[in-house]
Amino acid sequence: MSTRAEKVSIAVIGAGGVGSCFVTQLASLAKSRPSPKLSLIYLAIIDRALYHQDYAPIPLDNALEELDNFGFEPPSISDIIHFLSKAPHKVVVVDNTSSQAIAESYPAFLKGGISIITPNKKAFSGSKELWDQIFSSVGPQGQGPFVYHESSVGAGMPIISTLNDLVETGDRVTRIEGVFSGTMSFLFNSFSPINGEGGSWSASVMRAKQLGYTEPDPRDDLNGLDVARKLTILGRLAGMSIESPTSFPVQSLVPQELSGCSEFLDRLPEFDDRMDKERQEASKANKVVRFVGSLDLAAQKAKVGMEWFEKSHPIAGLEGSDNIISFYTERYGRLPLTIRGAGAGGDVTAMGVLGDLIKILRQI
Amino acid sequence: MSTRAEKVSIAVIGAGGVGSCFVTQLASLAKSRPSPKLSLIYLAIIDRALYHQDYAPIPLDNALEELDNFGFEPPSISDIIHFLSKAPHKVVVVDNTSSQAIAESYPAFLKGGISIITPNKKAFSGSKELWDQIFSSVGPQGQGPFVYHESSVGAGMPIISTLNDLVETGDRVTRIEGVFSGTMSFLFNSFSPINGEGGSWSASVMRAKQLGYTEPDPRDDLNGLDVARKLTILGRLAGMSIESPTSFPVQSLVPQELSGCSEFLDRLPEFDDRMDKERQEASKANKVVRFVGSLDLAAQKAKVGMEWFEKSHPIAGLEGSDNIISFYTERYGRLPLTIRGAGAGGDVTAMGVLGDLIKILRQI
Repeated sequence: MSTRAEKVSIAVIGAGGVGSCFVTQLASLAKSRPSPKLSLIYLAIIDRALYHQDYAPIPLDNALEELDNFGFEPPSISDIIHFLSKAPHKVVVVDNTSSQAIAESYPAFLKGGISIITPNKKAFSGSKELWDQIFSSVGPQGQGPFVYHESSVGAGMPIISTLNDLVETGDRVTRIEGVFSGTMSFLFNSFSPINGEGGSWSASVMRAKQLGYTEPDPRDDLNGLDVARKLTILGRLAGMSIESPTSFPVQSLVPQELSGCSEFLDRLPEFDDRMDKERQEASKANKVVRFVGSLDLAAQKAKVGMEWFEKSHPIAGLEGSDNIISFYTERYGRLPLTIRGAGAGGDVTAMGVLGDLIKILRQI
Repeated sequence: MSTRAEKVSIAVIGAGGVGSCFVTQLASLAKSRPSPKLSLIYLAIIDRALYHQDYAPIPLDNALEELDNFGFEPPSISDIIHFLSKAPHKVVVVDNTSSQAIAESYPAFLKGGISIITPNKKAFSGSKELWDQIFSSVGPQGQGPFVYHESSVGAGMPIISTLNDLVETGDRVTRIEGVFSGTMSFLFNSFSPINGEGGSWSASVMRAKQLGYTEPDPRDDLNGLDVARKLTILGRLAGMSIESPTSFPVQSLVPQELSGCSEFLDRLPEFDDRMDKERQEASKANKVVRFVGSLDLAAQKAKVGMEWFEKSHPIAGLEGSDNIISFYTERYGRLPLTIRGAGAGGDVTAMGVLGDLIKILRQI
């Protein structure tokens, strides 16, 4: 008979866009529903860490200021794991970084009895080997250590949890399709709108960059890898054996000529006619262009790229930078279960992380 | 320090459309992932019950046949509670009925340490007093007894869990709006379509009845009470104090002249002009008519009735008998988090119930 943890210690790694929102939300949760069960024992950013050798709690209210004032050089990952695995209470690590090295250490965290929550896609969309190592290290249902990663696809939207529920209750998922990137959503909603005409492709990209909707180098969005990573995660959860996010067809919107060039945005207009042609051909068929990822579970196929949609299709009708994800299943029949909303942003991503923490606290 | 249950006993009340799907799904889950933790100790329909005084398990594989062959007269609700509260293991009751009497007994079940899962709206959309009694009888977070009712709104779609997550993580829900009735969805999607012209209102109602999309008496759908009940549940979960589903404006589509009449469907065509007028006026504004429920959390107002929508609005674009529910929140900003899909049907409703059971098993 296993017992329930009286106290749970939290370690937070990363306090950037998502991480700082998370710490704020956690502090606010702790204030509105004080729980003697929960304490923060480790907080770190890339070059600074705060913790006490005796595991004394860090006050949540001004944790980020404390880190700023009293933080010191962070220990190595293996030292962090050692420190946390010796803690007197059960530990949950919240990895708000996008670090590959930390992602690769998840199996070691888990073997140390430490649960993991993260919006970081890297661990789940890397090699199949890492995936297998992670999920063979989690504890039995309801006992932990746990791995939760709701925000790795669609930020705080209930995508991962919904897919897991479908699979666990015995439904058969036949197809998953959607717009998985806020950047791609924004770009195509304005480049190929339902009503009226869009501007040039390069102008859309430049506007997206100005508004902060792209990565510092927009090629990191346009190469399709972000979408391929999310599709890899969903495919694996649905039971497909996907080797890596580059093991299936992914259409890159970065012209090959500009892949290594330092003046990408300056030279992008030279290639506007390619995207123009795609839009015109779709328009002749009375359709619009969208950048989608899709999984065909029956055929065990995944693909990422541009597709055309009827103007009345929910994917065509997206606005802003919204994501949309549809699950076609045996039980749902002809029409899918569809979830739509903001799939990026610090606050909604952090909310998914906090929701995971609440779910773990109920079980641990 | 509380301990974890080694075994959990399930009692299933009701084996109609949803209940029989649930028992089948549960048997199939038990087969694919055998768990010595779980056993069925009570199964009943309205006039027949099966259980053993020594709490011996009922074989899941052919539970419904066993009930048919060996069932006897069901005990009273208070006798059921007495029997289950003396069980050697923790007990979860799955109420797949739409019984008001059982709904009113939830506080007594909970006080006997028995958790409850149900798609039955009655307990949560009845008097505020019953709601308060139920939720003051649940145990502390993660310890139980639990009350889960995902399928009481939108069948198996993640509506209740999503709203709870939004509230628990500290988001501020400002507005909830949607089409909450599969029957109303089907009726208006065909009566007031985006493209082309719909038939007469009475013909739409008759067709829906023929296809099995309405209650035996379609007035039970058309009076709007089903939508009002779902709205009451969501409003209360979001923090509104709603006295009852009749304490806010609910538009009934049953002509007053036909409310008590025995030839409802025969006489409905006499009133087609009223609905025709509504459709024509919406059409002049280039809009379509839909039957929606909405909650304005800031103004603390709820309402149910016909509204007009732009043809590009997701609510206008519904198909079949799909539900759609949008959550407008502070963190999501201008565009809502929206969930769309089948909101009725035995299998998808049972799936929501089974999903709740899996969530409770992780915690109990």
